[in-house]
Amino acid sequence: MEIVGTIEEVRKFVSRAAEAENVIGLVPTMGGLHGGHLSLIDAAHEACGYVVVSIFVNPTQFGPNEDMDRYPRTQEADLDACRAHGVDLVFTPTVEVMYGRGFRTVVNIAELAGALCGRSRPTHFAGVCTVVAKLFNIVGPCKAFFGQKDFQQAVIIRRMVADLNFPVDIVTCPTVRERDGLAASTRNQYLSPEPRGQAAALNAGLRLAAERIRQSHPTAAEVINAIRGHLATAAPGGKVEYVQIVDPLTLRDVEVTEGEVLVALAVKFVGARLIDNILVDSRTAGP
Amino acid sequence: MEIVGTIEEVRKFVSRAAEAENVIGLVPTMGGLHGGHLSLIDAAHEACGYVVVSIFVNPTQFGPNEDMDRYPRTQEADLDACRAHGVDLVFTPTVEVMYGRGFRTVVNIAELAGALCGRSRPTHFAGVCTVVAKLFNIVGPCKAFFGQKDFQQAVIIRRMVADLNFPVDIVTCPTVRERDGLAASTRNQYLSPEPRGQAAALNAGLRLAAERIRQSHPTAAEVINAIRGHLATAAPGGKVEYVQIVDPLTLRDVEVTEGEVLVALAVKFVGARLIDNILVDSRTAGP
Repeated sequence: MEIVGTIEEVRKFVSRAAEAENVIGLVPTMGGLHGGHLSLIDAAHEACGYVVVSIFVNPTQFGPNEDMDRYPRTQEADLDACRAHGVDLVFTPTVEVMYGRGFRTVVNIAELAGALCGRSRPTHFAGVCTVVAKLFNIVGPCKAFFGQKDFQQAVIIRRMVADLNFPVDIVTCPTVRERDGLAASTRNQYLSPEPRGQAAALNAGLRLAAERIRQSHPTAAEVINAIRGHLATAAPGGKVEYVQIVDPLTLRDVEVTEGEVLVALAVKFVGARLIDNILVDSRTAGP
Repeated sequence: MEIVGTIEEVRKFVSRAAEAENVIGLVPTMGGLHGGHLSLIDAAHEACGYVVVSIFVNPTQFGPNEDMDRYPRTQEADLDACRAHGVDLVFTPTVEVMYGRGFRTVVNIAELAGALCGRSRPTHFAGVCTVVAKLFNIVGPCKAFFGQKDFQQAVIIRRMVADLNFPVDIVTCPTVRERDGLAASTRNQYLSPEPRGQAAALNAGLRLAAERIRQSHPTAAEVINAIRGHLATAAPGGKVEYVQIVDPLTLRDVEVTEGEVLVALAVKFVGARLIDNILVDSRTAGP
């Protein structure tokens, strides 16, 4: 496994691999690798002959009062995990490599970036788009793997790729969950035992909602109230930031739960803000 | 010469040319080809084995009250000129090809896009960045050629390429001028004889300014006043939109004309808004 810190080195190794007729797989991460990331790496391996993982805690996607400084930096464990999962190249640039002198460009999709998590994190998705655009240009034509847990991120990146014609295939992989249903997240480790126990209510609430939608096509407001009720009982330590039911492409609120809808929520516990979502098609029996 | 309208065709021909070890040259245009464009095509030919010209009147770089509808569409003449200058591939997409359903992404560099022409054209450079980002992703690694007449555009695109790591070399070529010094521009043809005669004053004023800067390092205000005085006398039919002296990288106003500065101006005549500029290094004797 190669571990490199410069753009030139990434290009050198990737172009060599591409010349040898490999499909290139890219898994962009901020490190703190967990089961979710590893499932992306495994999916990349299945589809691609050469797998690149980037590890970069991207400052432009954190807001001024967010947790960038205490975001886990677990480089040695991350590299061990990459090795164990057969990664070919790890790109771990410094902030200086990614945002050199005079950096000013922003890639954004205002309509999508302002929805859901964007209401409390107004600059987050512009930071994500910009750094992902850079990674795509650094790596070149590839398949890039993202987790469904960050559904809004995946929608935005798909839109960016389509709009700007990046020669990149976006693959979205299912959310990996802990035993009690909590979506795997680097931030789960911030939770002390009591909120960690309550956090399972996020996924449970979403599953209840999905069941109701498939059974009786209730209004979005009814479903949202039911989820909020569940969270109030099962996760009293969590402060609900949003529970929304939206069109999975436009991220705009829907009023009725017909066809395919995304039920998404964010809840703040002491120590960590958690998100989760479920895609529901009211016309199918579902998983 | 191939003439294609789809992204897939561009990629097919360009990847074939790249596989045959050609450096790819890209000259993005809005058609209405004149001597300036042809000099870019010729420069592309000197540096590259395969030359692509895009012809696309990009709606997102026009403001609501600008001249998009009456912008010259001279496709047959443009194609003839491309043929005569040995272009390999012309890409003439429709608006639908470039901005399909649901298009929402914007690439912008707010600080640079708000300077100079951006004051009266606040959305122009975001439109330019976005369409050029698309063209770079469609064509892939290449050398891309832009004229110095659109100096701000060239600065912004260089910044975008550096910031987002596009695998593209930007080449800026000297402004091509008509016999009386007027910078070649598709919009010159809008001018009736009287304003056309006066329009030569733009370049003359800039050349006078450059001479003064090299001789006596005056303040920017002194130089600007001198240019405005020249325009008032020699181009009374023109309404000065701006005359500015700026740092050629940041586009911020300078107060003293020391080192390398850009003197830039925009003047509105009946029928056409014209721009021009001159790069002056106070430390050298100049051309």
